[in-house]
Amino acid sequence: MKLAHLTWKDVDVLARDIVVVIPTGSLEQHGPHLPLMTDTLLATAVAEAAEARLVEEVLLTPTLWLGASGHHLKFSGTLSAGFDVYMGAIRDIVESLLPHGFRKFFLVNGHGGNAEPNGVAMRQLKARYPNSQFGHANYYTFAEKAVSDRLVGPAKTMRHACEAEASMVMYLRPDLVRTEKLRDDGLQPVPAVLGMVHHFDEISEEGSLGYATLATPEKGKAILDAAVDGLVANLRALAQGYVFEGE
Amino acid sequence: MKLAHLTWKDVDVLARDIVVVIPTGSLEQHGPHLPLMTDTLLATAVAEAAEARLVEEVLLTPTLWLGASGHHLKFSGTLSAGFDVYMGAIRDIVESLLPHGFRKFFLVNGHGGNAEPNGVAMRQLKARYPNSQFGHANYYTFAEKAVSDRLVGPAKTMRHACEAEASMVMYLRPDLVRTEKLRDDGLQPVPAVLGMVHHFDEISEEGSLGYATLATPEKGKAILDAAVDGLVANLRALAQGYVFEGE
Amino acid sequence: MKLAHLTWKDVDVLARDIVVVIPTGSLEQHGPHLPLMTDTLLATAVAEAAEARLVEEVLLTPTLWLGASGHHLKFSGTLSAGFDVYMGAIRDIVESLLPHGFRKFFLVNGHGGNAEPNGVAMRQLKARYPNSQFGHANYYTFAEKAVSDRLVGPAKTMRHACEAEASMVMYLRPDLVRTEKLRDDGLQPVPAVLGMVHHFDEISEEGSLGYATLATPEKGKAILDAAVDGLVANLRALAQGYVFEGE
Amino acid sequence: MKLAHLTWKDVDVLARDIVVVIPTGSLEQHGPHLPLMTDTLLATAVAEAAEARLVEEVLLTPTLWLGASGHHLKFSGTLSAGFDVYMGAIRDIVESLLPHGFRKFFLVNGHGGNAEPNGVAMRQLKARYPNSQFGHANYYTFAEKAVSDRLVGPAKTMRHACEAEASMVMYLRPDLVRTEKLRDDGLQPVPAVLGMVHHFDEISEEGSLGYATLATPEKGKAILDAAVDGLVANLRALAQGYVFEGE
Amino acid sequence: MKLAHLTWKDVDVLARDIVVVIPTGSLEQHGPHLPLMTDTLLATAVAEAAEARLVEEVLLTPTLWLGASGHHLKFSGTLSAGFDVYMGAIRDIVESLLPHGFRKFFLVNGHGGNAEPNGVAMRQLKARYPNSQFGHANYYTFAEKAVSDRLVGPAKTMRHACEAEASMVMYLRPDLVRTEKLRDDGLQPVPAVLGMVHHFDEISEEGSLGYATLATPEKGKAILDAAVDGLVANLRALAQGYVFEGE
Amino acid sequence: MKLAHLTWKDVDVLARDIVVVIPTGSLEQHGPHLPLMTDTLLATAVAEAAEARLVEEVLLTPTLWLGASGHHLKFSGTLSAGFDVYMGAIRDIVESLLPHGFRKFFLVNGHGGNAEPNGVAMRQLKARYPNSQFGHANYYTFAEKAVSDRLVGPAKTMRHACEAEASMVMYLRPDLVRTEKLRDDGLQPVPAVLGMVHHFDEISEEGSLGYATLATPEKGKAILDAAVDGLVANLRALAQGYVFEGE
Repeated sequence: MKLAHLTWKDVDVLARDIVVVIPTGSLEQHGPHLPLMTDTLLATAVAEAAEARLVEEVLLTPTLWLGASGHHLKFSGTLSAGFDVYMGAIRDIVESLLPHGFRKFFLVNGHGGNAEPNGVAMRQLKARYPNSQFGHANYYTFAEKAVSDRLVGPAKTMRHACEAEASMVMYLRPDLVRTEKLRDDGLQPVPAVLGMVHHFDEISEEGSLGYATLATPEKGKAILDAAVDGLVANLRALAQGYVFEGE
Repeated sequence: MKLAHLTWKDVDVLARDIVVVIPTGSLEQHGPHLPLMTDTLLATAVAEAAEARLVEEVLLTPTLWLGASGHHLKFSGTLSAGFDVYMGAIRDIVESLLPHGFRKFFLVNGHGGNAEPNGVAMRQLKARYPNSQFGHANYYTFAEKAVSDRLVGPAKTMRHACEAEASMVMYLRPDLVRTEKLRDDGLQPVPAVLGMVHHFDEISEEGSLGYATLATPEKGKAILDAAVDGLVANLRALAQGYVFEGE
Repeated sequence: MKLAHLTWKDVDVLARDIVVVIPTGSLEQHGPHLPLMTDTLLATAVAEAAEARLVEEVLLTPTLWLGASGHHLKFSGTLSAGFDVYMGAIRDIVESLLPHGFRKFFLVNGHGGNAEPNGVAMRQLKARYPNSQFGHANYYTFAEKAVSDRLVGPAKTMRHACEAEASMVMYLRPDLVRTEKLRDDGLQPVPAVLGMVHHFDEISEEGSLGYATLATPEKGKAILDAAVDGLVANLRALAQGYVFEGE
Repeated sequence: MKLAHLTWKDVDVLARDIVVVIPTGSLEQHGPHLPLMTDTLLATAVAEAAEARLVEEVLLTPTLWLGASGHHLKFSGTLSAGFDVYMGAIRDIVESLLPHGFRKFFLVNGHGGNAEPNGVAMRQLKARYPNSQFGHANYYTFAEKAVSDRLVGPAKTMRHACEAEASMVMYLRPDLVRTEKLRDDGLQPVPAVLGMVHHFDEISEEGSLGYATLATPEKGKAILDAAVDGLVANLRALAQGYVFEGE
Repeated sequence: MKLAHLTWKDVDVLARDIVVVIPTGSLEQHGPHLPLMTDTLLATAVAEAAEARLVEEVLLTPTLWLGASGHHLKFSGTLSAGFDVYMGAIRDIVESLLPHGFRKFFLVNGHGGNAEPNGVAMRQLKARYPNSQFGHANYYTFAEKAVSDRLVGPAKTMRHACEAEASMVMYLRPDLVRTEKLRDDGLQPVPAVLGMVHHFDEISEEGSLGYATLATPEKGKAILDAAVDGLVANLRALAQGYVFEGE
Repeated sequence: MKLAHLTWKDVDVLARDIVVVIPTGSLEQHGPHLPLMTDTLLATAVAEAAEARLVEEVLLTPTLWLGASGHHLKFSGTLSAGFDVYMGAIRDIVESLLPHGFRKFFLVNGHGGNAEPNGVAMRQLKARYPNSQFGHANYYTFAEKAVSDRLVGPAKTMRHACEAEASMVMYLRPDLVRTEKLRDDGLQPVPAVLGMVHHFDEISEEGSLGYATLATPEKGKAILDAAVDGLVANLRALAQGYVFEGE
């Protein structure tokens, strides 16, 4: 179900073991070739495709398009929420719905920079409502194998405005890709120091990390399909109870 | 310009006297007949229509769809940001763009409950950045005459999920109107006490205020057109400088 | 009742449907002719006069004299609370009295800049205590007709350190009016752009808006009387229950 | 100078080494015999008397009458600010005036419960503005000898609604003393454990500590005179520079 | 009991009238002769010695070594928590243990700058949990007589990196005293103005106040012994109930 | 260098490209067999061993022993800081030292629950001070291979109070291990749903995850040695500049 399209009376009669799915994206620079809304576009696409296959089991909210993007602020047009506001928005959404009886919440994230605050926000909620269930994952976690299999450049994981992201935007919204500006960037840095916080103006020339020149819409479709499949399986399991499997 | 569709390089070359327009909506109950996204839909439609006529003079962000809707929370599915989070999101957007050189910001609001915090947030920003310009208005302020002229029910002003709002949703997204559930509600209360804060479960039966049964798409179009005309004139004046007129 | 003059034992035996009235003022510049305490003086005078006529129905607190006056800070001597502190003080007062059993709260405001945060604060309280009643109004809302009828200058509404405010201070505290410095100011600005946030150093020369040179104590008395009459009627209605009237 | 009575133009021409004096009081229970405004009354009286003797050297703000009185909240009518709001109000006042050029700030406190947050607030300000000067003291610190000399009951220090406070209110506002309800209370507890936080409903029967039945207006005058003398000397020294004396 | 050494099962079976003791120190400059950890060292030593004598009556947490030391920040290496963080840490510790059933909490403080925020934090807790018991004291309050008796320099009270503190560090950790740099400092200032907030770079040359050159380990032992004796008596009384004594 | 042992004069002459190392631990339940201080003990041991080998290149602060342990609070004796306080303490430490000229900061973490807030705190600092360097890592990240090689139970990664942690505590502080209570726990749960937030009372019986019964001090030493080796290499690289390596 798409929450935005429902009336309150529609919501009132939903089963309360439905999984509330909240996509989290960003509006931040994605190099000279991809639009600022890239992460929001991709998280939304994956979440909506999953909702289409789980209509009765998922209640999908609109995408939180204002992400935690401080590391991109040097590039014009990037918008970033502070961590307090970002995490507060997630908590406020959940705390609006908890009194209506919903108990299962899952964030589908499309922006790496949101992962830590998504974790903190969900833990804050779990501390307040220990009998409810809270989860979060990056959509591309469900597509790790597809990414690794399909990318032909040297980098085999999801990076930023890279071969994989450019491929997915090409597939979904080719009109928004600046094909003539596709660019490989941020190639050299494997920092010798583990665990450092980087801003993107420190580690790239024009804002991307990876081999966007190798992008194709076919790869994009394959990665998205894999992400949707994985997310569907995960949300279905959450909707159907919560099964622990032996080791 | 639609910010979400641009790359950072596109933004980088924009004129800095462009007006940044931020629509603010809500995701809250609108009676048994209109979808939760009503305010977001309408604010977005008005803002996008204005942007289409002022492409070079307006930089349009995505709509803040999570509003200050505490007075609707008794109705299932309503989401509400706390005031701190709501105002923080506005400030964070503006404070992301100020270092990029933008100086004129205007909120186009579609939800009455946002008006006070919009004012507070813009005043907080003005206090920090007195040389920049900050404004905000409800889109329907620009359509007061059209609303008064067109509505046939006893209420001649914009209320909630009313004849006017239902008409506009009918015009824009007829698929989202539950025609068979259109309902007049909240008719009796002209409270004898001025200035009281009400929750909608206190002053309506099913969440709306006004005569939605009288809605027609034609009225909706007329009201929207008037709102767009007024907003365009206002934004153009702001973009073109900032002229004071004698009394 | 004046809360400040009572002992806790006096308060303990009050009826709990009494209306707690909290005046909100400011300590901010009022041009070269009126004292910084103008708004506080006027809100207090109106509230005390109302209390004198509703002794058994109103419990009057001291006036919050530190207002939200950021738009006047360029003028020496203006004090301003940040919005968080300002709204927090209102909430703290109410939340002190709620556990004592009081349930009806009304802010009588004398400073335009307080109106938005007064609204936000009362809505925050209503969200926490939905079974209690919270209201707020500018005292001059109750005197709109008297203002319009009595003012002889071109401006027919309450502005700032204007014909109306100067008249009222002349009536109440003539010793505090700098008669020789009465000044008309801020006359030209009807901004062509609706909804902009202004600081007073942008829109006036010496801090006032309107035709203070036309002030007389007689006008002041008439406006104050009208405000008190309106406020008394409103508070009485709130004290006596809470009556909705049909449309 | 009384800030509230000045215009901004008056303030604009003041010498910037004037000491800004901010009285801090409370609105809290003072037993069955003294009014809720007792602390505010006394701090204001002492501060105003000092200002009257140091007109050119002191800029006196209105009294912050909403104190940190959580330990009295069990008694009806007590109002208390949370510590954040209380300290925020002090900081906001000072930070309004610092840009106007003032550099010396002193809190004259009338309520024991304000002493710790007064210290914290002034230290927060000193950390931000190390070149300005911030101080605070309880007015009765300047009258310790007079209190000790004059009180005839067993307790020889300032307590709460006690022989000393009752005497001072008798002197200043006899109409506000409930003479027939004067009461000795809180007599037994010298707790065997040092450093415990007490609420007044734990350590008194009706809210006071000490021997109020022994109060006389003469004692009140003597204590107030001593406090004013001490405060005047202290403020004068601060206004005149800031002299360190050898040990 | 030392909490850090216990397992959760050990804690689970403790008597709930045990006193939770939380030492509070600092990591701040102590002149050229004492280590930054001086306050933490001393508060810990006193608290641990008391715990050793009250094993069954005290549950000792690790020392909060990050204090409120803004007044020392001009000296390299000083660390300081803001007041919000400092008081928040105390509240979080207590609010972790309250749900486990503990009800008596006492802060043993070793740094003067912590005294006010310790008081505020404990009052905030008391306001939330009025049926639990909260106390705090500086360890040296229990040694006032020993300090006064033993010090041979002109200053007879505990100051900062002074004869007394240097003596105690000499006794406990002679390896951490820079004997060749022992220095008398801050000797002249008895400010003529009472109640001013000072930073240590204003009132000393190299960061200490007092006569450290006169320090001896013997004095240190005597002062520490007195502090432990006093603290033990106080904690025992708190553990054994809470007895009020007549005046 | 150990900051706690230095005087401010010692710190004042340190090279400013030294790496400030802040260990972060916890005080939380570690099953029936390990002490509450386990994470603090281990993070401290690794950090101190690294400092001993990098005396001139590392400035080591005391360990933040109060971690983000909300997921363990159901077990008696666990202390947890809220995220705001936890992250605030890290920021306050760094912001104390930045004005002293230090520019490189690294958190060595011993508690999984701290990893997300450590990341957020360092990103907040990087946003404020983009020209300084901020990093963080779990100490056991440097020992992944040693853990995988040495553990003999089915779980080959670091878990909680597990074979690896028990081994390390056995090696460092055998007196604190309850050998007779060593227990395997939390064995079954490989949750079928990825990304869920768990509290430890949901996923274990007595608080641990893994095969503690297989612990030996030899394994503990091997893991610690590996962690120290890896951390030393990482800190040295950070101290010596900041080298990017090609891919």
